Amino acid sequence: MLLPFTSASNNVEIVLKTGLGNKGKMKPVIKTLWWEKGKLYIIDQSLLPDREKIVELKNVRDVWSAIHNLSIRGAPAIGCVAAYGIALSAVKARVKRPSDFIRIIEKDIEYLATSRPTAYNLFFALERIARVLKISGNASVEQLRELIIKEANAIYGEDLECCYRIGVNGASLIKNGMNVLTHCNAGGLATSGLGTALSVFFVAKDQGKRFHVFADETRPILQGARLTAWELKKTGIPYTLICDSMAGYLMKQGKINLIITGADRIAKNGDTANKIGTYSLAVLANYHKIDFYIAAPFSTFDPKIKTGSEIPVEERDADEVRTVRGVRISPKDAPVYNPAFDVTPARLIRGFITERGIIYKHKKF
Amino acid sequence: MLLPFTSASNNVEIVLKTGLGNKGKMKPVIKTLWWEKGKLYIIDQSLLPDREKIVELKNVRDVWSAIHNLSIRGAPAIGCVAAYGIALSAVKARVKRPSDFIRIIEKDIEYLATSRPTAYNLFFALERIARVLKISGNASVEQLRELIIKEANAIYGEDLECCYRIGVNGASLIKNGMNVLTHCNAGGLATSGLGTALSVFFVAKDQGKRFHVFADETRPILQGARLTAWELKKTGIPYTLICDSMAGYLMKQGKINLIITGADRIAKNGDTANKIGTYSLAVLANYHKIDFYIAAPFSTFDPKIKTGSEIPVEERDADEVRTVRGVRISPKDAPVYNPAFDVTPARLIRGFITERGIIYKHKKF
Repeated sequence: MLLPFTSASNNVEIVLKTGLGNKGKMKPVIKTLWWEKGKLYIIDQSLLPDREKIVELKNVRDVWSAIHNLSIRGAPAIGCVAAYGIALSAVKARVKRPSDFIRIIEKDIEYLATSRPTAYNLFFALERIARVLKISGNASVEQLRELIIKEANAIYGEDLECCYRIGVNGASLIKNGMNVLTHCNAGGLATSGLGTALSVFFVAKDQGKRFHVFADETRPILQGARLTAWELKKTGIPYTLICDSMAGYLMKQGKINLIITGADRIAKNGDTANKIGTYSLAVLANYHKIDFYIAAPFSTFDPKIKTGSEIPVEERDADEVRTVRGVRISPKDAPVYNPAFDVTPARLIRGFITERGIIYKHKKF
Repeated sequence: MLLPFTSASNNVEIVLKTGLGNKGKMKPVIKTLWWEKGKLYIIDQSLLPDREKIVELKNVRDVWSAIHNLSIRGAPAIGCVAAYGIALSAVKARVKRPSDFIRIIEKDIEYLATSRPTAYNLFFALERIARVLKISGNASVEQLRELIIKEANAIYGEDLECCYRIGVNGASLIKNGMNVLTHCNAGGLATSGLGTALSVFFVAKDQGKRFHVFADETRPILQGARLTAWELKKTGIPYTLICDSMAGYLMKQGKINLIITGADRIAKNGDTANKIGTYSLAVLANYHKIDFYIAAPFSTFDPKIKTGSEIPVEERDADEVRTVRGVRISPKDAPVYNPAFDVTPARLIRGFITERGIIYKHKKF
């Protein structure tokens, strides 16, 4: 098994958990998207937390719009909904000849790939479906249809299992009475329904542990206030919402025992890109001797990137800072710096909670 | 001269600046409030930065409402406007007998004191005016009127001079090409028109120095985005607005050379209460070896308070976090922690920029 860091240094300690116990518990906690009797449903995330609107996506055009308009967001969730979008095409395609069927599906795959131009999981999921068509020999339309639905279910199921394993592994860190801080939304909504950092909380709660979560609101887009707070409320996990600037003062008062965030991309040496503000939390955690963990699947480790300095940081539109949910908060045309994420050096990260176990690269405080 | 810290420890280094040079430069940069030919004007801060509306306060009731509705805020600015409010009463009081005049003024002093129940500068300014009446012997109504206006002018002028001296002393820290970070609004709007931390920038600019300011937006009330950004724009000082969570990442990239914030209250040992988020900045500055200064008048040092642990931290309404300028950003009734400020230990503060000089308590990094 190839693990990150194995070639990087000699002070790597890997704690592998084996066995999942009860596989039956592997169900989504948050109903982000689901496939039921040939129909595809999502919760419209663009309306959260004000309204919980379930939407049926009736065809591939609906799926394209849902991804494009951010009704569904989060890389793994986009991958899943795109795969099911093609499954929808397969169900709807009323043709007899396999070649006609394949032409329709391939056109729809091409079309869906244009919904979010930079979403890695989107392309990956669509390629997996395309591959099914390529290796299916002279299958009938009915057989192709079944194979596509099966592949979409596999993509969804694998994400769910991956998230669940992250949750089980991370839950070992949660002790009764703990206060845990998280940033942004590494939650069920971003995935098939369990999340990464939040999966740890969901599994810990399922294990009967008593703990409290502090959720950073996460300016500028407020994923913490809008989505994480909603997921915690929905699942009955006691939580408190704070502004990003309050986390350090909570740590000073001894009110934070553990920090877990997600990750956008992890370099070979463990340097981690995640939502802007993560780096500050890691420095503050270091100063207060609080363990700071990253929860992320193996697929987030990018072996092509050696250190964090090679990770490009996207700067986003100034109006994200100048406004909040459409309301202006600053002088018009105020000059703005708006990096979408920052890079936390590996030395500030206590460990990486993955689906295969917790990877420790550095000594405990 | 009694200085803070003189009895506290033996490693105190006090750098006193003497002489102001050009006293003629001591004029407000921001027209927060002004008294002109017996009339009182303010800029309505509750409408900033969207609208710059000048309002004439025509009587003591207008002054009460302006303070109460936050059209004018910031402790020194409230003190000044209250003093001029009583000057307005003195101008308007159409009575012949000194005893009748004094009764009217005393009633108005009592009334204005109810506009913001916890504003120390408000009471202090009103007491100074009341004292003028008490020590004025058998002065005529005309003489009393003149004495009150003179005292109001003195309160305003002293604040302006204090701010200017802070600015002159602090400007010695600003070098060409520097990037300076500030938090919240320690600006002209909170005072007679120069501010504390921002006075440093105004004076440095007046001295021809080239530098750049990064302004934290300062959730939850966004004084940085709304007021500091407006003051910097208004005075032509190059600036960039950022979310609070971005400051640490800027420091990591070497983009911050100096940090200056204001203070709400300073304990005898130098521990400093200021707007929530200040403590995190101080820890981040420490980690990145960036000098972190507090700019505040001597009146902010509270000799009755030994250390920061004795400073009570006000927790404010949860809706300040749940909403931004009236727009909800979280689930309704989300549990919230909303401390109005935090306490930064003296060991993280490089120095205190006061009207009498810069006080250094700790060694340079």
